[in-house]
Amino acid sequence: MKRVDGTISSTEGILASGVHCGLKEKELDLGILYSEVGSSFAATFTTNKIKAAPVLRGIRQLQQVGTLRAVVANSGCANAFTGERGEADAEATAREAARRLDIRPEEVLVASTGEIGKFLDMEAVKKGIEEGVSNLSPTGGGDFAKAILTTDTTTKEVCMKIELTEGEITIAGCAKGAGMISPNMATMLAFVTTDLKISNEKLRPLLRRAVDATFNRITVDGHTSTNDTVLVMANGASGVSLYHPHDETLFADGLTMVCRQLARRIVEDGEGATKFVTVVVEGARTQQEASTIARAIANSPLVKCAIHGADPNWGRIVSAAGAAGPPLDLNRLFLKIGPHTVISEGRPVDFDRNAAKKYLEGKNIKITLRVGQTHTAAEIWTCDMSEEYVKINAEYTT
Amino acid sequence: MKRVDGTISSTEGILASGVHCGLKEKELDLGILYSEVGSSFAATFTTNKIKAAPVLRGIRQLQQVGTLRAVVANSGCANAFTGERGEADAEATAREAARRLDIRPEEVLVASTGEIGKFLDMEAVKKGIEEGVSNLSPTGGGDFAKAILTTDTTTKEVCMKIELTEGEITIAGCAKGAGMISPNMATMLAFVTTDLKISNEKLRPLLRRAVDATFNRITVDGHTSTNDTVLVMANGASGVSLYHPHDETLFADGLTMVCRQLARRIVEDGEGATKFVTVVVEGARTQQEASTIARAIANSPLVKCAIHGADPNWGRIVSAAGAAGPPLDLNRLFLKIGPHTVISEGRPVDFDRNAAKKYLEGKNIKITLRVGQTHTAAEIWTCDMSEEYVKINAEYTT
Repeated sequence: MKRVDGTISSTEGILASGVHCGLKEKELDLGILYSEVGSSFAATFTTNKIKAAPVLRGIRQLQQVGTLRAVVANSGCANAFTGERGEADAEATAREAARRLDIRPEEVLVASTGEIGKFLDMEAVKKGIEEGVSNLSPTGGGDFAKAILTTDTTTKEVCMKIELTEGEITIAGCAKGAGMISPNMATMLAFVTTDLKISNEKLRPLLRRAVDATFNRITVDGHTSTNDTVLVMANGASGVSLYHPHDETLFADGLTMVCRQLARRIVEDGEGATKFVTVVVEGARTQQEASTIARAIANSPLVKCAIHGADPNWGRIVSAAGAAGPPLDLNRLFLKIGPHTVISEGRPVDFDRNAAKKYLEGKNIKITLRVGQTHTAAEIWTCDMSEEYVKINAEYTT
Repeated sequence: MKRVDGTISSTEGILASGVHCGLKEKELDLGILYSEVGSSFAATFTTNKIKAAPVLRGIRQLQQVGTLRAVVANSGCANAFTGERGEADAEATAREAARRLDIRPEEVLVASTGEIGKFLDMEAVKKGIEEGVSNLSPTGGGDFAKAILTTDTTTKEVCMKIELTEGEITIAGCAKGAGMISPNMATMLAFVTTDLKISNEKLRPLLRRAVDATFNRITVDGHTSTNDTVLVMANGASGVSLYHPHDETLFADGLTMVCRQLARRIVEDGEGATKFVTVVVEGARTQQEASTIARAIANSPLVKCAIHGADPNWGRIVSAAGAAGPPLDLNRLFLKIGPHTVISEGRPVDFDRNAAKKYLEGKNIKITLRVGQTHTAAEIWTCDMSEEYVKINAEYTT
């Protein structure tokens, strides 16, 4: 398995494009992804009770449609909380793309991100689809990745090659993140393509597991979006299938790795983020409880601000853990900030404050908390909270 | 019932003082509250699994002791996560105060706030108690209120007179807040005195109800502290008791009003706060669910930042509600920002954006969300999130 330079259209048989159609002022705002043949697919969607129109449509597709051929994704408008008109707009988007691409509307997945409660400007969308379809190319993946961004400062792209028994396959993906990022079964927009030959039945549980281990581990602001969508399309263009059980493990690992890279990139580019923070909680009674505690720490603005200020303020970490709900074995509490043990056997230990401060001044922070004796562990990835976060969110309308 | 100027020592038979003993650099950092006679008392404490030493001691007192005579409260050190030594220090604090006041140690409640994981400087505490005891006076309440502050910018004090059947009583209180403020059964330090004659058995359920309706409604940062304590002492000095059932209602209302004022003052002075925000959720299946939804909105950094920026960004409000967990009746969703209806019958309505923006530029913001048809309602009080919040918490060690 090796990581290579590439975009979502580095996968054989996948074309992509990104254009500016007027949903945003001047940046690229509409992307099209096209598979030359019908692709198996798997997708996970937001668990927010308020689901955007394209998410509602996608959930139906997942139940009713066997293969996908294309994706139309736009930024600048989430098409969320837009009622029947929003659903009709999502449908019309798919229909227009299908017409231009000469495929069926139900083979087109639609995804939107941007401001909630605004209707799609369908004139712009139609113009964008026309231009996007004529621009489709194997080198268009980079523009597609740009077209889905909102407050993101960079594109998030990853491409991986894996040697299976029958030959080499590619897994490539891109994602957008920045705000309204909180792990809850699926987060934000992420698209992955692969030329593996695989059925929906095999692909879907593999995506579910990959998402649980990656996108569901991240949080920027604890706020689960209305539009979260993770999609994998597998077009079989490599002619390579999962011949041997070992191949399945390799592919599952590769898919997880691609999802992990994208998820990490989302956190690294979290709104106002200056640091990547890994919170590990070990020894809880269940994995669920470990996860609850880790998220409470990762979502505490007090903890996030302390990390931003490079302050080895472990009191905030343990008090966030204590407020999370699950029981803690106080006599066995063990806490490390990076390599610095600050609590052992439930007692604060002398540690080198200056060295810990220096560690926290770095870009990559790890916090490890042991709350009991079991072998369960959960990991959550988050970022620090800066003045910039407030500035972005006081001024930008989501 | 009328509100009057006054401090916690405006209650007859109550003396107070606040001194600087060296736990903080120069501000007042130790306060003593003294009742000339044994007082009935009620108290609520944090539900955080990590409980500070004085909280553990207070919980035992609540079970084992019939009357209180004094409180020693310090800022600058939370005496939390300090193990056996911390518990011994809390006990020694009570013992020293008891010796100087010629009362029993179990009649002294100890409360601490400030940095977690730091041991109390007992030399300073002893010096503070000596000076604080000799300074005790009926006009010392203001200094007491000052001595318990941390990142607070002002004292929070309230005094109320109530005419009962047998005569007039006083209820007076003070509180400290600012950070680590989240509603969970009891929050931060708040002290209330009254000269009503009332038993512990009657007083305790009344405090529980008052706290549920007030302190448990507030959140600054969703982070429940390790030291939360609300205490009421009733010394009976007025000679007035709850003669008539109507008196009980009046007193309960008065106590709730005092708690409400203090709770609101804590939110108004939340770290970096520039606005007071009331989130009302109506029509949920249960009060608990209404409360869960209201808290999700009140704790969303995206919502708090939008309010800071006076941005009528209702998408963030409904998406926070949708992510909260409880079901929403999407066809009946109704949302008002102040007087401006932005969603009705589940659909966005045209509203005057400029007028809504103007409204949000005010200091007192109300958000009302109806999620179904029941008559339940819950109210949560919070503040906006500003760059200043991040600055305070990146630089200050709690």
